[in-house]
Amino acid sequence: MMTFTLGELAVRFGCSVRGEPDTTVERVGTLRTATDGAISFLANPRYRKYLATTGAAAVIVSAEYVEECPVPALISEDPYALYARVAALLYPPPRFDPGTHASAVVGDNVQQADSAAIGPGAVVEKGCVLGENVYVGPGCVVGANSHLGDGTWLIANVSVGRDVSIGERVLIHPGAVIGSDGFGFARDGTSWLKVPQVGSVVVGNDVEIGACTSIDRGAIDDTVIEDGVKLDNQIQVGHNVRVGAHTIIAACSGISGSTRIGARCMIAGMVGFVGHLEIADDVTVTGLTMVNRSIDSAGVYSGGLAVDNAVRWRKNSARFRQLDDLARRLNKIEQATNIRDRKRKK
Amino acid sequence: MMTFTLGELAVRFGCSVRGEPDTTVERVGTLRTATDGAISFLANPRYRKYLATTGAAAVIVSAEYVEECPVPALISEDPYALYARVAALLYPPPRFDPGTHASAVVGDNVQQADSAAIGPGAVVEKGCVLGENVYVGPGCVVGANSHLGDGTWLIANVSVGRDVSIGERVLIHPGAVIGSDGFGFARDGTSWLKVPQVGSVVVGNDVEIGACTSIDRGAIDDTVIEDGVKLDNQIQVGHNVRVGAHTIIAACSGISGSTRIGARCMIAGMVGFVGHLEIADDVTVTGLTMVNRSIDSAGVYSGGLAVDNAVRWRKNSARFRQLDDLARRLNKIEQATNIRDRKRKK
Amino acid sequence: MMTFTLGELAVRFGCSVRGEPDTTVERVGTLRTATDGAISFLANPRYRKYLATTGAAAVIVSAEYVEECPVPALISEDPYALYARVAALLYPPPRFDPGTHASAVVGDNVQQADSAAIGPGAVVEKGCVLGENVYVGPGCVVGANSHLGDGTWLIANVSVGRDVSIGERVLIHPGAVIGSDGFGFARDGTSWLKVPQVGSVVVGNDVEIGACTSIDRGAIDDTVIEDGVKLDNQIQVGHNVRVGAHTIIAACSGISGSTRIGARCMIAGMVGFVGHLEIADDVTVTGLTMVNRSIDSAGVYSGGLAVDNAVRWRKNSARFRQLDDLARRLNKIEQATNIRDRKRKK
Repeated sequence: MMTFTLGELAVRFGCSVRGEPDTTVERVGTLRTATDGAISFLANPRYRKYLATTGAAAVIVSAEYVEECPVPALISEDPYALYARVAALLYPPPRFDPGTHASAVVGDNVQQADSAAIGPGAVVEKGCVLGENVYVGPGCVVGANSHLGDGTWLIANVSVGRDVSIGERVLIHPGAVIGSDGFGFARDGTSWLKVPQVGSVVVGNDVEIGACTSIDRGAIDDTVIEDGVKLDNQIQVGHNVRVGAHTIIAACSGISGSTRIGARCMIAGMVGFVGHLEIADDVTVTGLTMVNRSIDSAGVYSGGLAVDNAVRWRKNSARFRQLDDLARRLNKIEQATNIRDRKRKK
Repeated sequence: MMTFTLGELAVRFGCSVRGEPDTTVERVGTLRTATDGAISFLANPRYRKYLATTGAAAVIVSAEYVEECPVPALISEDPYALYARVAALLYPPPRFDPGTHASAVVGDNVQQADSAAIGPGAVVEKGCVLGENVYVGPGCVVGANSHLGDGTWLIANVSVGRDVSIGERVLIHPGAVIGSDGFGFARDGTSWLKVPQVGSVVVGNDVEIGACTSIDRGAIDDTVIEDGVKLDNQIQVGHNVRVGAHTIIAACSGISGSTRIGARCMIAGMVGFVGHLEIADDVTVTGLTMVNRSIDSAGVYSGGLAVDNAVRWRKNSARFRQLDDLARRLNKIEQATNIRDRKRKK
Repeated sequence: MMTFTLGELAVRFGCSVRGEPDTTVERVGTLRTATDGAISFLANPRYRKYLATTGAAAVIVSAEYVEECPVPALISEDPYALYARVAALLYPPPRFDPGTHASAVVGDNVQQADSAAIGPGAVVEKGCVLGENVYVGPGCVVGANSHLGDGTWLIANVSVGRDVSIGERVLIHPGAVIGSDGFGFARDGTSWLKVPQVGSVVVGNDVEIGACTSIDRGAIDDTVIEDGVKLDNQIQVGHNVRVGAHTIIAACSGISGSTRIGARCMIAGMVGFVGHLEIADDVTVTGLTMVNRSIDSAGVYSGGLAVDNAVRWRKNSARFRQLDDLARRLNKIEQATNIRDRKRKK
């Protein structure tokens, strides 16, 4: 376990210390549960109530709240980002031994950096290229002729198809599937004819792909995940989708084929995009929304109804089925009574 | 195949027999399709119509319907629970041979009970502890220093991260992932900085976890699944979530980070919880609901609209986009005509 | 790489050529990005704008648009289906070597056609039957006594339970799970008693099953996927569900237990079916719909609200919570003013 003083952290990350700079920290903790030796942080105001009584050795806090902090502090304009850096220092990723485990199976003509590791039970098919410090964890399968850039990690039981290109410093969690066939069928009478999916998947640098997330290969051209995209668990990305740089998507969302999502978007959980849409940069979509049309300007978009108690919900949702009728009746009354709001919004 | 008489079953489970107690049963069947040698049950009234003509050798039935039963019967106040017990007797779980398969890979310092089994192609990393009668099925990966309590089964291709603690008699289905990183990123200009996920996952006793379900490890403290929780397939559990004892969650639901769900809740399919909520004990949520606020009392809650034919749906949902306007116009008419329901509910 | 002339393709597929029949093609491309040697197609009118300037060597097109085509063409009434056939010819599935990889584990009494292959790290348990040209890819697990029909492919890391029956020419993508336990529990005081899931799964011929899709085994009788069904990624199929022939289901949809879906249905993404429903043949359901009742006639059905900007959405959805009240107030005004549309639709 590594130990740092607040003074060392302040120098390393360019922030200031309040209180004793020789205070040492060796692990992280929440304001509420931290004990001796732990450094905590205050970013979300909902946790401010735990600051005064924290058992942490030190806290990362903004100047605004530092007076309330009962223990030594690192002062930062962005306590959460500084916390992320401190935590990364205290908890480096687990080390692995380079080389190929005896139980792994590696095909012909695989180019593998000396610093790369292929774990137990993993399969890397012919023609693959594995960069420096690549880690192919236990049970992973990498299809023929795929490339994994420097520093990319496949944790365990990840499936990568053939001819897939994955960039540098990409982290892929267990159960994820990259490069499965897109869902393409042509009608053939009453049955369906498979359309070969001959494109592939290109994943940029610094991407994270969550557990049980699937990214289909393109029908002809490629499916593209640009640099810095973060995909949570249980996400579906259809064929020929493009997700723009630094866009972040929460769990259980799905993107249908050929939809293009801009850069720096924030997509909440269980959002569904229909196919062939264009979504602008810097779009935020809240949870459980069906995005059924293109969005051409930045902003916040919604489509999910709020939970209610079931009795009230049942009454209101029954009225939803009469909504067009109610509107027509309202029109009729307005006409009959000659009451109309001439300036009403469309 | 084992065979039991109704008399034996009645003694074992403390219920009464109607008809010939020497009737033997050796398997289960539905009322509609059962044949000789099968025992069936009537629990859901929708299947009562099949009782009079059943081909089952015997039926488990409540006293209320026993007169309608044309074959020998076991009488129970709770036919479904008694059926579950009888079926468990007739269909014991498949046996496995203890020990480690030659193709499995086991790390250093793994403590493994003599009765435990590690199947073909499975990987158990260093420092793990496997209790009595633990079964790690083919293709499963168990990360370093994780614990599997007595009687826990990982069926196949299950991924368990490092430092995860799983209780006793836990059943985990294929493709499930326990202990992947939580989805935590801090803004860093236009890109995202990974926040190390240093907590773990603690799963209690008698939990079932479905196929392709993912449970993320905590950011600092642990994600917790309490005793007796049943999770269906394709569920996402975010970091630092706590699911209370004996809560049952149907497929495709997702729980965002730091939300706490009470005990004995019943959550239907495709329900999405936003983060940082507190859900009381004994809450029922119906399907396709977005739970976007905390719920502080037991009861039934909803948020999903009923399917309709597309033409009517289109009309009503177009009106939804005018709903605030419609309400304002209604207000205006009420004022102009001086008609107001003074006692109307909020 | 194989090369064909348009003349050869016209003979093989019974269509006509416009322009030089000796034009050769060796790969496919989109109208927009195709280059020399590529054959493209025009099926979706949204891409017609790229026809005049295409760099493709040839295009598959309907007679309606052939005059606009600047390069040699294959003329077809159904360009997309013809494209599917041409692409299948140009891109045959990858070959595999028959036989069992040294690292695979095969149980006792497995019947395996000479032309079948079991890949590295795969596990096929005792009593399984593998037909001609079956491919069990790396990391797949096939449980005891399961059958895989001729020409069936399991790509990688697929999990098939015991006693499962899969037909011919079935294609199953990575991470899919066939034959996990159904979600069946009987109440036992405040806890839950597992109901043994003793049925299995029967998958017909020419089925495709997407990445990370799960199909549960039946409680007593079997879960059934009929011939020609196409399931996308991330789909959940509950116990005792039956999906009718040639039905196609898009990603992230879920079907609760005992629901029967008819033949030739088209189900969009993120559609949730509650349990015990009967859905007729030829039903189309649009995205994000909760199907909460049986549907007894063919047609199109919906239930998802359209995305809107968040400010307008918030106003309208707040009014949704007053909808029953608004309707009652409208009734009151109609009565007071004596204005009623006597013929209004229900």
